[in-house]
Amino acid sequence: MTVTNGYEQSDREQAIKIINLDELEDQARQIIPQGGFGYISEGSEDEWTKARNRAAFNTVQIAPRVLHSVEAPSTSTSVFGVSIKTPVIMAPTAAQGLAHTRGEAATAEGVAAAGTIMSQSTYGTTSIAETAEASKGAPWFFQLYMSNDWEFNEALLDEAKSHGAAAVVLTVDSMQGGYREPDIRNEFQFPLPMANLAAFSETSGKGKGIFEIYAAAKQKITGADVRRVAEYVGLPVIVKGIQDPCDAALALGSGASGIWVSNHGGRQLNGGPGSFDVLPSIARAVNGRVPVIFDSGVRRGSQVFKALASGADLVAIGRPAIYALALGGAQGVRTVFEYLTHEFRIVMQLAGTQTVDDVKRAKLLHY
Amino acid sequence: MTVTNGYEQSDREQAIKIINLDELEDQARQIIPQGGFGYISEGSEDEWTKARNRAAFNTVQIAPRVLHSVEAPSTSTSVFGVSIKTPVIMAPTAAQGLAHTRGEAATAEGVAAAGTIMSQSTYGTTSIAETAEASKGAPWFFQLYMSNDWEFNEALLDEAKSHGAAAVVLTVDSMQGGYREPDIRNEFQFPLPMANLAAFSETSGKGKGIFEIYAAAKQKITGADVRRVAEYVGLPVIVKGIQDPCDAALALGSGASGIWVSNHGGRQLNGGPGSFDVLPSIARAVNGRVPVIFDSGVRRGSQVFKALASGADLVAIGRPAIYALALGGAQGVRTVFEYLTHEFRIVMQLAGTQTVDDVKRAKLLHY
Amino acid sequence: MTVTNGYEQSDREQAIKIINLDELEDQARQIIPQGGFGYISEGSEDEWTKARNRAAFNTVQIAPRVLHSVEAPSTSTSVFGVSIKTPVIMAPTAAQGLAHTRGEAATAEGVAAAGTIMSQSTYGTTSIAETAEASKGAPWFFQLYMSNDWEFNEALLDEAKSHGAAAVVLTVDSMQGGYREPDIRNEFQFPLPMANLAAFSETSGKGKGIFEIYAAAKQKITGADVRRVAEYVGLPVIVKGIQDPCDAALALGSGASGIWVSNHGGRQLNGGPGSFDVLPSIARAVNGRVPVIFDSGVRRGSQVFKALASGADLVAIGRPAIYALALGGAQGVRTVFEYLTHEFRIVMQLAGTQTVDDVKRAKLLHY
Amino acid sequence: MTVTNGYEQSDREQAIKIINLDELEDQARQIIPQGGFGYISEGSEDEWTKARNRAAFNTVQIAPRVLHSVEAPSTSTSVFGVSIKTPVIMAPTAAQGLAHTRGEAATAEGVAAAGTIMSQSTYGTTSIAETAEASKGAPWFFQLYMSNDWEFNEALLDEAKSHGAAAVVLTVDSMQGGYREPDIRNEFQFPLPMANLAAFSETSGKGKGIFEIYAAAKQKITGADVRRVAEYVGLPVIVKGIQDPCDAALALGSGASGIWVSNHGGRQLNGGPGSFDVLPSIARAVNGRVPVIFDSGVRRGSQVFKALASGADLVAIGRPAIYALALGGAQGVRTVFEYLTHEFRIVMQLAGTQTVDDVKRAKLLHY
Repeated sequence: MTVTNGYEQSDREQAIKIINLDELEDQARQIIPQGGFGYISEGSEDEWTKARNRAAFNTVQIAPRVLHSVEAPSTSTSVFGVSIKTPVIMAPTAAQGLAHTRGEAATAEGVAAAGTIMSQSTYGTTSIAETAEASKGAPWFFQLYMSNDWEFNEALLDEAKSHGAAAVVLTVDSMQGGYREPDIRNEFQFPLPMANLAAFSETSGKGKGIFEIYAAAKQKITGADVRRVAEYVGLPVIVKGIQDPCDAALALGSGASGIWVSNHGGRQLNGGPGSFDVLPSIARAVNGRVPVIFDSGVRRGSQVFKALASGADLVAIGRPAIYALALGGAQGVRTVFEYLTHEFRIVMQLAGTQTVDDVKRAKLLHY
Repeated sequence: MTVTNGYEQSDREQAIKIINLDELEDQARQIIPQGGFGYISEGSEDEWTKARNRAAFNTVQIAPRVLHSVEAPSTSTSVFGVSIKTPVIMAPTAAQGLAHTRGEAATAEGVAAAGTIMSQSTYGTTSIAETAEASKGAPWFFQLYMSNDWEFNEALLDEAKSHGAAAVVLTVDSMQGGYREPDIRNEFQFPLPMANLAAFSETSGKGKGIFEIYAAAKQKITGADVRRVAEYVGLPVIVKGIQDPCDAALALGSGASGIWVSNHGGRQLNGGPGSFDVLPSIARAVNGRVPVIFDSGVRRGSQVFKALASGADLVAIGRPAIYALALGGAQGVRTVFEYLTHEFRIVMQLAGTQTVDDVKRAKLLHY
Repeated sequence: MTVTNGYEQSDREQAIKIINLDELEDQARQIIPQGGFGYISEGSEDEWTKARNRAAFNTVQIAPRVLHSVEAPSTSTSVFGVSIKTPVIMAPTAAQGLAHTRGEAATAEGVAAAGTIMSQSTYGTTSIAETAEASKGAPWFFQLYMSNDWEFNEALLDEAKSHGAAAVVLTVDSMQGGYREPDIRNEFQFPLPMANLAAFSETSGKGKGIFEIYAAAKQKITGADVRRVAEYVGLPVIVKGIQDPCDAALALGSGASGIWVSNHGGRQLNGGPGSFDVLPSIARAVNGRVPVIFDSGVRRGSQVFKALASGADLVAIGRPAIYALALGGAQGVRTVFEYLTHEFRIVMQLAGTQTVDDVKRAKLLHY
Repeated sequence: MTVTNGYEQSDREQAIKIINLDELEDQARQIIPQGGFGYISEGSEDEWTKARNRAAFNTVQIAPRVLHSVEAPSTSTSVFGVSIKTPVIMAPTAAQGLAHTRGEAATAEGVAAAGTIMSQSTYGTTSIAETAEASKGAPWFFQLYMSNDWEFNEALLDEAKSHGAAAVVLTVDSMQGGYREPDIRNEFQFPLPMANLAAFSETSGKGKGIFEIYAAAKQKITGADVRRVAEYVGLPVIVKGIQDPCDAALALGSGASGIWVSNHGGRQLNGGPGSFDVLPSIARAVNGRVPVIFDSGVRRGSQVFKALASGADLVAIGRPAIYALALGGAQGVRTVFEYLTHEFRIVMQLAGTQTVDDVKRAKLLHY
């Protein structure tokens, strides 16, 4: 246990046994302080949309195919020319120091060990440099929350590019925080510095405090912002937080190289659809032109399968990995990805699909 | 605590902290006497319709739009030429003395402070004059339960007009009380005088007792009654309690200047639809000719959004404000309106809507 | 308390207070012996259909109409030329001695006092003569379970006709008892004689024991049986237990003068539809040629309304009246009918319907 | 109680009383060791599909027909020229020694006594010879899990044929075990030898250990395997585990003589449809060319009826028989089949169906 600003961070580094990802939540609740756990686990308002994220998967069923000559299915796939062992990647989640003293660095290490992709958040508790270092050459994405201060955006994009980010994930669904009650109940304040903000504050010489920068987060985001980021950074830009086909089209028209379907795990707009509800219509709008990444509510191999069969190319998870981070550090994170991939591989076999491409063509039913 | 006829009225006047409007109910239950609380909170019969009021909102979802260039959305709107800070107004609810010793006067004061519209009930425990006074120039509506004694109606309408009511709300769904079990179980009798009835009894010289007037409430209400009230009072008349497009059309043909879609919070006809279920068809019948006001079951910013996006121009709340009245007097009431407007503003931002008019044009989904 | 063959029968005769009909079940459970209560309350198999009977009502909603000029609605109606105060009548239920020492006689007395129609079961614990006597001139129906012994049928029909039955209810859905677990768990045996069977045994001189007669109940029932009964008795024959439009048509073609839509309160075939589910299609098949009576699951005024608006002319209740019989004798039974009619009258007013015929024309919605 | 390798096997042989099949589960839980009970009762992943198996039956309703001249319905039917007393047969389930020391032999004896068909699993704890012997001339099927070692398959098929199997059931939905949490939680290992595997190991002279053979189970199964088995064994081959019409067509085209619709009781692919959901489309694909057998979730007579009315010719049960095996040995098993047939016969009568063929033509409703 490490205590920072009075906040007790886990410093575990150990193997964890996973029966299912859902159970990690209660286990993590035991060791993450209440304020941090509330922040990580919460949804917005009455959490209808957060719950719908899960329930939406049950609106479709996988047709089990049994005479399809499948053996030892392969979960390998690739994105932006990078090969990975599994279509399950890490979603960008902020402030991972709330779960573990090594924060994003440990996550990156575990993700790399599992052979898949890390996403580093603007609001990480470790810096881009540290996370990149921990990835040890494995592919990773940098996630950007745009600031009204373009210099800040440039600084982060420069940093990410110089450390070898494979793509930039531009989050566009968080022009304002959702109304999340646990944070209010807990009177939760971030106890830990955000490394990238602190770094900019120091190096820019502009004398800005972290709070000032945080408050400068951009509300007003348009296609022009997508284009500006893409043109500046010269890396693929994935627009994250898309829930409507028209926004997907707008993002593509503005130079997006990827569409990330997400409702932020039900943390932003409540009263909207489950993320899985909107995936098919967005995938049709994208029509294969760029990769589609999906998140929000994935906990089971069968859900990974359903998302891919509904048009996703990759599936991201967030909270389960953070819970495992608290429980076992990098080893915990690695186990989460390997475990979920294991469940997914069983589903592949039982559904009669040999490859990830087979999964994408699989038939789904509605009962 | 003030004791009137053996009934213990709250006399709190204090700031309240709201996490969500639902929690107010249990908090208020602690301080409002059982009979009064039963009367305020109850629905009719087995309360299917009261419960459906809430559930109906979940039959539609807000499409989250994210590249819409929205910043600091405005909740301002107007009705009958009156500008207000929020589309959330106060529904007329009877006998507010059950919740607070200052009754409607405190409510009016809180509503005015929040920059929106009060509705004063015929069966208020404070008089039209007192409520109007407490509004301090802010706009307010007078709600009329018609009596078979036209003189009584005239007296109330005269009083309301002379004190500056902006409109008259003519309630037409209460030709008889719904079958409400808590009142029967509690053997509940109104412990407090109804100021407007008492005043008429005294000033008319007709020697009628309050019970006599109350019993004279009109069951048989038609379009002709709407017309008669409208012609007499010379103010906009909003017909409240409409749940069917044909009744809306009939009201409009009879001179209504507004349609108030409501099932009385599930207190009247049970076994009918949720109020939100019928809003779209009524809004289509009204077709923008007059303002549509909506109530019954609204507790969340996302629900305000959904109601406006389904054809309402204003949304009214009742019970949550009464609970807050008990908990904090005028300050409590004010906080309820500001809180709900705060939730609504967050939803506006996250749904990509800058103005109330944008909300009205927003797309809803059905999953 | 009266003890007969070791079975403790209620002999209460007192006013009862009803908040709602559902609560009567638990109250009655306190005073009816376990075996008898099990028999009265049970459904068959896993009771899906019994539960569906209730849930089916929530699949339609009453459209509340508010400008319809309604005042003091009338619940009066008539059937076979007999005027009654309410469309709610008594369903035939067997062995009412299980609930009260006076059995069907007390029920008949209470039903008559409420101004509506009693139905006397073949398997009553009081005789046709006693029940007819207790009806004191009020209309009543005789319900026939056919025997393979036609002489037995003739004897019962003769008896019913001679005592003034207004119609014969021929039950056709009980060719065999449903699979009802409480009876098996309780090893329940009827502790009381069945008066009509005992009487036939004595008077026919055929020397048959009750068990022999009971075992002779007819499984194989066809249209020819309907015709034979109708031709023999010369009274209107209502065929009870219809759940399919084709069976309704067949009954009509065989001389039925009424169709009784019922699934026996979920006591017979489980896994079938709720009785209310099938009412509209059967009413369309009948098309107004004969009266349609509906039962199974009715507990609320709004449900009476929905049944009438879906094609029923009369609505019958069973279990709630039997519970009230145990709790208050004839007075209890009377109160049940008056109470339910009271709830129904409120719904009539709030739905904008002045007469039972208005109710039949009312619009229902599906949300 | 018999203890084998530390595992406590029931050795009961006694009459059991059945109120309903569901209750057997809790009763059996008391006497089967935790590991064995987990293995028998579990489904895969979050058990959505296992639960859906039950719920799917409630999506259709039996139309109760009442004037159909039915008396003492007959449950007799036949398959492959073999007459049986009931359309309910025994599904192949592995390792029945977990429930009872006599294992499959006791099951076969009970099934034969009930006049229906036993299915012997490849992975039985008693040998083909023993089970065949216990069947005493009654018809039985042999179920084959294919091995990559064709010699092993031949040995089993030879053995089954020589002992008089009426058909071979080729299971094709278990190319890999489903992800079942109780086994992992209990760290369950089969404590008992599998007789057929052990026998092959000894007699083949190939020196293979049981684990080696078990590990050689074939993942890659195609139509060619169906054809090879059918041509080799010269008995009807029923392909078990079909959940999709195209797989049914493929099996038929590959020489299948029967289609067994099953999702393995929800033990294999989770996130797929309920087995009953897919039955109608598969029956249409088969179109009467070969018998259709159905399992997964059947516990009630009404469910047997619904399955037959949806296109099944026979219905199989697994877990309830295994629970009864633990509770009462051969007598318990016999009672399960007789009990369920009893429930089914009541439903036949109440639905107006005289024969199993009538049931197949019965109308189902969807509410």
